[in-house]
Amino acid sequence: MLDLSIIGGGPAGLSAGLYATRGGLEKVTMFEKGLPGGQITGSSEIENYPGQGKVISGMDLMDPWLEQCTKFGLKHEMKEVVKITKKDDYFELILDDKSTQQSKAVLLATGSVPKKAGFKGEEEFFGRGISTCATCDGFFYKNKEVALLGGGDSALEEAIYLSNICSKVYLVHRRDTFKAAPSTIAHIKKTKNIELVLSSSVKEVYGDKTGVLGVKLDTPKGERDLGVPGIFVFVGRDVLSDIIKDEKDNFLCEVNASGEVIVDLNMRTNLKNFYAAGDIRIEAAKQVVCAAGDGARAAISAIEDLR
Amino acid sequence: MLDLSIIGGGPAGLSAGLYATRGGLEKVTMFEKGLPGGQITGSSEIENYPGQGKVISGMDLMDPWLEQCTKFGLKHEMKEVVKITKKDDYFELILDDKSTQQSKAVLLATGSVPKKAGFKGEEEFFGRGISTCATCDGFFYKNKEVALLGGGDSALEEAIYLSNICSKVYLVHRRDTFKAAPSTIAHIKKTKNIELVLSSSVKEVYGDKTGVLGVKLDTPKGERDLGVPGIFVFVGRDVLSDIIKDEKDNFLCEVNASGEVIVDLNMRTNLKNFYAAGDIRIEAAKQVVCAAGDGARAAISAIEDLR
Repeated sequence: MLDLSIIGGGPAGLSAGLYATRGGLEKVTMFEKGLPGGQITGSSEIENYPGQGKVISGMDLMDPWLEQCTKFGLKHEMKEVVKITKKDDYFELILDDKSTQQSKAVLLATGSVPKKAGFKGEEEFFGRGISTCATCDGFFYKNKEVALLGGGDSALEEAIYLSNICSKVYLVHRRDTFKAAPSTIAHIKKTKNIELVLSSSVKEVYGDKTGVLGVKLDTPKGERDLGVPGIFVFVGRDVLSDIIKDEKDNFLCEVNASGEVIVDLNMRTNLKNFYAAGDIRIEAAKQVVCAAGDGARAAISAIEDLR
Repeated sequence: MLDLSIIGGGPAGLSAGLYATRGGLEKVTMFEKGLPGGQITGSSEIENYPGQGKVISGMDLMDPWLEQCTKFGLKHEMKEVVKITKKDDYFELILDDKSTQQSKAVLLATGSVPKKAGFKGEEEFFGRGISTCATCDGFFYKNKEVALLGGGDSALEEAIYLSNICSKVYLVHRRDTFKAAPSTIAHIKKTKNIELVLSSSVKEVYGDKTGVLGVKLDTPKGERDLGVPGIFVFVGRDVLSDIIKDEKDNFLCEVNASGEVIVDLNMRTNLKNFYAAGDIRIEAAKQVVCAAGDGARAAISAIEDLR
């Protein structure tokens, strides 16, 4: 029986592991099949993790974390958790090798991943001119023109964010109307440096070894070429909370309409000894420092609750 | 008129300044009369800020922050804000030099400071064997004996936290009963490695240049000497929210009974364009990474709200 199982090895999971073991929990395991460090390891430039002032890659940023976070006793299991169920007064995890693991408490830190739009060049230039995070990467295009793909609430909010930094934002949407809050749409329409490119899609992002050079769009008036160095893609996110969903599609704890886990300021869910931290929770800022803060807070809550 | 005023230059304020300016707010000022970096700069050993794996001093940990956080346009004013009031659709700050400053939005990141108990050696050995944070420093006394001074909820919770790490915790309290939740008191009483030393006070903490060597107590049976290397002091905190209190003792926004500011997951208070982050808010974990995460989140909220 583990004291605490941490599902996911990004900034939230690693930070939680550090705090849980350093705080005296003895049997703490972090389940992460891939490389610990999380999505940020796919980013080429980070300059907003406080304390790390140099512009470095996500891989370099996260490099010291595993050693630091495991040195107090956190175990790292390179297995995937495929399902979590609640038993009497503990949780049972089913792993991808069909084995099971019992745990007194569980921290869900699986995150969410941006959906791909599916255009040519999307994989090739991801992290080198294609971004899925305006807060992270907008500043790299200060006073430059960028294109943004999407038409939902997040896309429009990110477009407004970028309009404060970039000289111009081309907002490319496949429909001629937006599925977003009316006030946000109104704001978009009155923002002078946002140009709407509606009923249009991205055909191809092109560039060279230095990164993106531009994007070709399919528009009602034919192909349009924008020579922008940055493309932001916001076509939805896959929230990785399926492992807490049962066969009747009921979630183990309260989630919102997107499947994001509802937590309080202590990262507690409505289910005893079950926590969520990082991008999987509601209102996540999707920033390394916020996820790491969440993880620490969740671990402190678990230590309190498991006494 | 500033876009955002940040009151306090600890991890929350610095992180907020970084995120606010990098996110496109142009007029952002952080008011901090002392050395930026916050209380943590008084700690001699930190090993739990994720990404900074070496054991370093708080001063060294925070050293790169000011340069990183000001390089996108954050201004640092070495003045103290003595009062914040709400005008029609902006805030007015009164500074210690009697000047005033108008601001569209305000982030309160003033923190809270542990009260001193007033015994001999308290100043001399602070940060060298005397601590006010079990989460931060408990691990440095793993499998060692420590003394803890206090009798409220926080003190008892910290004692339980330490009992998971340390071989023994002497819980020294000046009264013979505790002012804390009955369940916490019951937990304390059944924890084998917590020894109650009631109706007692700390007379002196002594040591040498390596740090604390022990503590002398006044007990009902006379002086008692405990040869412990660590003393944790939990005799209350001064929550630095007086600057948002008017002459009738009404607070500008909702606070709890301790004066801590009530926030949601986005660090918004109940007052529009007014935020709180770090140790000044309810349920603060009082950890650098949590405060920094709060600051980032508050800045992102301010950017959204000020559009």
